[in-house]
Amino acid sequence: MAGSSFGQSFVVTTFGESHGSAVGCVVDGCPAGVPLDIEAIAHALERRRPGQTALTSPRRELDQPRILSGVYQGLTLGTPIAISVENTNARAKDYEAWHDRFRPGHADFTWFARFGHRDPRGGGRASARETVGRVAAGAVAEALLAALAARAQRGAPRIVAWTQQIGEIATEIAAPLDRAAVDVSPVRCPDAQASAAMIAAIEAAQRDRDSLGGVVRCVVTDLPPGLGDPVFDKLTGLLAHALASLPAVRGVLFGDGLAAVAMRGSQHNDPFTRSPDGRIATTTNHHGGVLGGISTGMPLRLDVLFKPVATIPQPQQAIGAEGPPAPLTVLGRHDPCVVPRAVPIVEAAVALVLADLSLRQGRL
Amino acid sequence: MAGSSFGQSFVVTTFGESHGSAVGCVVDGCPAGVPLDIEAIAHALERRRPGQTALTSPRRELDQPRILSGVYQGLTLGTPIAISVENTNARAKDYEAWHDRFRPGHADFTWFARFGHRDPRGGGRASARETVGRVAAGAVAEALLAALAARAQRGAPRIVAWTQQIGEIATEIAAPLDRAAVDVSPVRCPDAQASAAMIAAIEAAQRDRDSLGGVVRCVVTDLPPGLGDPVFDKLTGLLAHALASLPAVRGVLFGDGLAAVAMRGSQHNDPFTRSPDGRIATTTNHHGGVLGGISTGMPLRLDVLFKPVATIPQPQQAIGAEGPPAPLTVLGRHDPCVVPRAVPIVEAAVALVLADLSLRQGRL
Amino acid sequence: MAGSSFGQSFVVTTFGESHGSAVGCVVDGCPAGVPLDIEAIAHALERRRPGQTALTSPRRELDQPRILSGVYQGLTLGTPIAISVENTNARAKDYEAWHDRFRPGHADFTWFARFGHRDPRGGGRASARETVGRVAAGAVAEALLAALAARAQRGAPRIVAWTQQIGEIATEIAAPLDRAAVDVSPVRCPDAQASAAMIAAIEAAQRDRDSLGGVVRCVVTDLPPGLGDPVFDKLTGLLAHALASLPAVRGVLFGDGLAAVAMRGSQHNDPFTRSPDGRIATTTNHHGGVLGGISTGMPLRLDVLFKPVATIPQPQQAIGAEGPPAPLTVLGRHDPCVVPRAVPIVEAAVALVLADLSLRQGRL
Amino acid sequence: MAGSSFGQSFVVTTFGESHGSAVGCVVDGCPAGVPLDIEAIAHALERRRPGQTALTSPRRELDQPRILSGVYQGLTLGTPIAISVENTNARAKDYEAWHDRFRPGHADFTWFARFGHRDPRGGGRASARETVGRVAAGAVAEALLAALAARAQRGAPRIVAWTQQIGEIATEIAAPLDRAAVDVSPVRCPDAQASAAMIAAIEAAQRDRDSLGGVVRCVVTDLPPGLGDPVFDKLTGLLAHALASLPAVRGVLFGDGLAAVAMRGSQHNDPFTRSPDGRIATTTNHHGGVLGGISTGMPLRLDVLFKPVATIPQPQQAIGAEGPPAPLTVLGRHDPCVVPRAVPIVEAAVALVLADLSLRQGRL
Repeated sequence: MAGSSFGQSFVVTTFGESHGSAVGCVVDGCPAGVPLDIEAIAHALERRRPGQTALTSPRRELDQPRILSGVYQGLTLGTPIAISVENTNARAKDYEAWHDRFRPGHADFTWFARFGHRDPRGGGRASARETVGRVAAGAVAEALLAALAARAQRGAPRIVAWTQQIGEIATEIAAPLDRAAVDVSPVRCPDAQASAAMIAAIEAAQRDRDSLGGVVRCVVTDLPPGLGDPVFDKLTGLLAHALASLPAVRGVLFGDGLAAVAMRGSQHNDPFTRSPDGRIATTTNHHGGVLGGISTGMPLRLDVLFKPVATIPQPQQAIGAEGPPAPLTVLGRHDPCVVPRAVPIVEAAVALVLADLSLRQGRL
Repeated sequence: MAGSSFGQSFVVTTFGESHGSAVGCVVDGCPAGVPLDIEAIAHALERRRPGQTALTSPRRELDQPRILSGVYQGLTLGTPIAISVENTNARAKDYEAWHDRFRPGHADFTWFARFGHRDPRGGGRASARETVGRVAAGAVAEALLAALAARAQRGAPRIVAWTQQIGEIATEIAAPLDRAAVDVSPVRCPDAQASAAMIAAIEAAQRDRDSLGGVVRCVVTDLPPGLGDPVFDKLTGLLAHALASLPAVRGVLFGDGLAAVAMRGSQHNDPFTRSPDGRIATTTNHHGGVLGGISTGMPLRLDVLFKPVATIPQPQQAIGAEGPPAPLTVLGRHDPCVVPRAVPIVEAAVALVLADLSLRQGRL
Repeated sequence: MAGSSFGQSFVVTTFGESHGSAVGCVVDGCPAGVPLDIEAIAHALERRRPGQTALTSPRRELDQPRILSGVYQGLTLGTPIAISVENTNARAKDYEAWHDRFRPGHADFTWFARFGHRDPRGGGRASARETVGRVAAGAVAEALLAALAARAQRGAPRIVAWTQQIGEIATEIAAPLDRAAVDVSPVRCPDAQASAAMIAAIEAAQRDRDSLGGVVRCVVTDLPPGLGDPVFDKLTGLLAHALASLPAVRGVLFGDGLAAVAMRGSQHNDPFTRSPDGRIATTTNHHGGVLGGISTGMPLRLDVLFKPVATIPQPQQAIGAEGPPAPLTVLGRHDPCVVPRAVPIVEAAVALVLADLSLRQGRL
Repeated sequence: MAGSSFGQSFVVTTFGESHGSAVGCVVDGCPAGVPLDIEAIAHALERRRPGQTALTSPRRELDQPRILSGVYQGLTLGTPIAISVENTNARAKDYEAWHDRFRPGHADFTWFARFGHRDPRGGGRASARETVGRVAAGAVAEALLAALAARAQRGAPRIVAWTQQIGEIATEIAAPLDRAAVDVSPVRCPDAQASAAMIAAIEAAQRDRDSLGGVVRCVVTDLPPGLGDPVFDKLTGLLAHALASLPAVRGVLFGDGLAAVAMRGSQHNDPFTRSPDGRIATTTNHHGGVLGGISTGMPLRLDVLFKPVATIPQPQQAIGAEGPPAPLTVLGRHDPCVVPRAVPIVEAAVALVLADLSLRQGRL
């Protein structure tokens, strides 16, 4: 496979540039008979869509998905599911001013080094707009997970992510009940006090013509034990791959993450116990639901670190393929902080991994 | 591919259980004509070998590699390179006492959930002994990287990792010159003061029948710009996959990692400049050598987080497939801290990714 | 990868059902900077399009390709190339009469057995309409082959297929000069006498409400030696895969094919010689351009066998999921002989293999 | 994947050169709990082993397999199964005489063109000795098929191949009952009269210092309907790939093969019926068990065409990298006809495909 595909059995290929005709995905390997509602896909895209609040990019895309193949009368056919979303609001002109300059913190230079050209129409495929395909595919993955769980007569894994930190404002809350509880906050932080502080921090950064990063935490409950395909395709390995390949990600942590490093084994080892219904569980969850790269059945917990947005409307030292560096001020429609919009993208990436591993292991 | 292979063009498959006949790897896709010395492989294995100091596992394996195929008169043939290492010192009897119990913090339960059986001979393939195959393949990868660089008449990428933190003892040092400078320290921390403190910490943990985790930092210099295959197989995506699939890893961080999260864009964006020899560079390196998932030519920098070793010789609450939890004391030959031995393993994982991407991009 | 993708480095994924919204493909792995003209794709689709003569299906599709991504200002971007072709003339009603019956010689029963459902709108993805995606991708592959050859300052491989046999009418001609010479004949047989006989045979079959099969021969000239990736991905292995997966194919033969079986080694071995320009060649070409699964530089020659079209407008014994067999007469718009339209499809399949192998071997 | 691996879920990687240390395979993806007897592997290797009769190569290898990993107490562990067979009887000296010449009909020149070097120790990996790994893996595949069938409480697919033609001597017999019935004949043709004629033909060729080709037919009974993964990984596509990548293969035909080409649809379409036990069947089997690339449940039938052996002990026109062509007489230990030994190799290739598709489709 080339670099735009992910998965072995549930294989997602995304396509599309930020300012081309369309973006989208092809999902190959989804079994037949999975109920798939285009509204579920549209809803997922709506959650990642820019232009929703003053805090995010004013670029407005309706992001209406179109299913080109693979679904008939609301059920998957077992054939490739192609989903396309038109780029209706691309304004390439915005970018002309610096089409021969490499912007600091951006992929302009590295894509030039890799491909020998620059797409002068904006970030091209390095743009976060590429994640439209991942989110649409993630909605298919969630439909599959629901169908597999229904067949096995158990509850489907529930994937819920939220904003854990923006800039220096962090929270420590228990996992929210569901996505609706997360979406109550404009920054998707279901801790009212932290949410307000995060909003203030973003507004302050915006006033300063600056930007912020942050952390998205994701928890998956009702995940059965036994998911993971050692040694390379451990659950941790595949999740790290799917998440670290998202735009602007600087790290992925599992369970207690950095705190685990400073613990002793006697603190970090979670004692085993048996739950009231007879299942094996642990009394604590430092391990975050994964041991030896395979799910334990305890809630899966991970953190995804995002750097501050590279585009800031203030002069910075840029450079071209030739010539000396010189100050450049980048304009355009960009989020001062991508973290709230990254929440559904993280959920989608996690769903892709869980769907792929579920199929690989024959859990039909 | 199933879960024991990694890579698209430089494809590594590892095989072997901790207490089976042999461990090893097959490397497929390495071009013909690469000088490959079995001594280089033996040296790499020697660096990860247990039993070297009082601080590591007393299990003694000579770990002599045997090349079964793919190399003739010191040159690769372009055919699969199979490397096998016999397990000469497996003591399955050590494990019999708890072969029907799932040890806390170990993969016993999850492998049972995944595969429906337990290898009573110890960790089986969940054991860190599996990394013998990765390290041998990493030595092949480094030979390939050297050959590719020689053909292109540039210096080969230099991959150097070291112990950055053990338990609560951390250091902040500049990247060491080479691996010899790292190996001076018994814990592979090239900061004499921190090294001494780490040794003391490990000895204290050992006295307390406990264990420690830590952080391995890795830096790659002389990496050309343009390496990475978006969107899923970005350099960050593949590195995270290779590293998070190592035993005991709890996280992977790129560049400034957690610190980046709290920065503003104006701090984190590295200004572009032109180096004296005309190449494009940045004046700082917060980005750690990767922008948009593609190498920039600046030093690649990443951190790998390891949890404390699960095996501790004190009573812990274990459980079996049936019955209530009960205290268990696990004996055996285990490291109180794997971090020093993880250093060459991290280097190998990084080398696998760089070799694969180099071939995929046709940099022959 | 799941079953709708082909290739390792030049990866083609096709999508679409015969009577869904659209058919098409995504090509991932094509390097940047390849000149790609949408007219070339349109022309390739035009050659496989039904409705051109009285001898082929009266279904009329304009088959206008739309490039959704991966191309900008006539050059590939190095990103996935998504191409979509709308299904404008699907007449699902035609099929309603036998939506609960399995037609003899068709894939109705086997797709039901595989996927647990039937697409009542015709052959679904088992229809030859699926090959639209392969032909579009084949045009991209040919553009890549041309670009690679231009960079290497040699002539591009010339892939020319033609109708070698229809029903019992066979010809033995030298390879035609180019596709234009082939397209002169309505049945794509560049032997005027055989062509006339083939047309008569098809008309006779049509009168008898029956159908015919045939053989497509393909020759590739100017293919450099050294193409093939043993042991599984030999040139023969990949070509056989690409060709035997086409609809209605019953066999693939290389070089002298069936005749080779009855030869002795002394007859079949082609003596080596040196061509006037110094290259190594053979004085005869029984081997058809491949030895040991790798191209020799001599013309590649292969035959693809097609069974007679399954759809015939006369009563046949069909069956449903339940109940006894019963006669069924299938109506619809179908070719009495697919062989002429298969010619560009075979060329496309061959182009996909050559493009993939060229990239895998780093012949940039 | 690189070229020495085959399969998506049941992934086989073979390794080893004809005159290196060892040949073998790694099978990744085989589920845990499959009974696997080393005797079954040894028996399969024994059937392909040279040196059994005067009709085959006098090279004598004991071909004792050693299982390095993945099996414990007679059951698979779900981890990679590495199998190694030592090369004990390699006589590289035999080859020294022509190490700088390319033998006609051999892969010497093409491997040189591909890899830029020659393995002077004989055919290297182009030698049929490479198929040791395929045959060992085939034995694992058959063990898996048996285990899957047992779990599903049905009979396992029975794969039986035999010699259908040698040189100009062909037979037309019904599928033999089992492999024992085939092995009665020294040329593996279970038609006593044809067998005798084939033996005479081989002896005549041997006397003439010449060689013969032939056809292996393979039939699989008790194969359930529904196996195949369209559109590229149809059962036909994968079988063609596995078979056409075997040494010396010149073609693969399904069902009626070449005869189908000259039939009309009304002759070739097999009428559907219902078998006494209620299953859907066809009254004839022109289609050879595959429709639309998916198994029908009728016996799978295919022919594999082998060219005459390239090595013949008489002068032929060879060439070197430099210089003019000149006569060369090749000595060594080679079969005058490989077809009898190809029988178990064809069976193994078919088993690999069936095992892979069975796992891919979740038929656990």
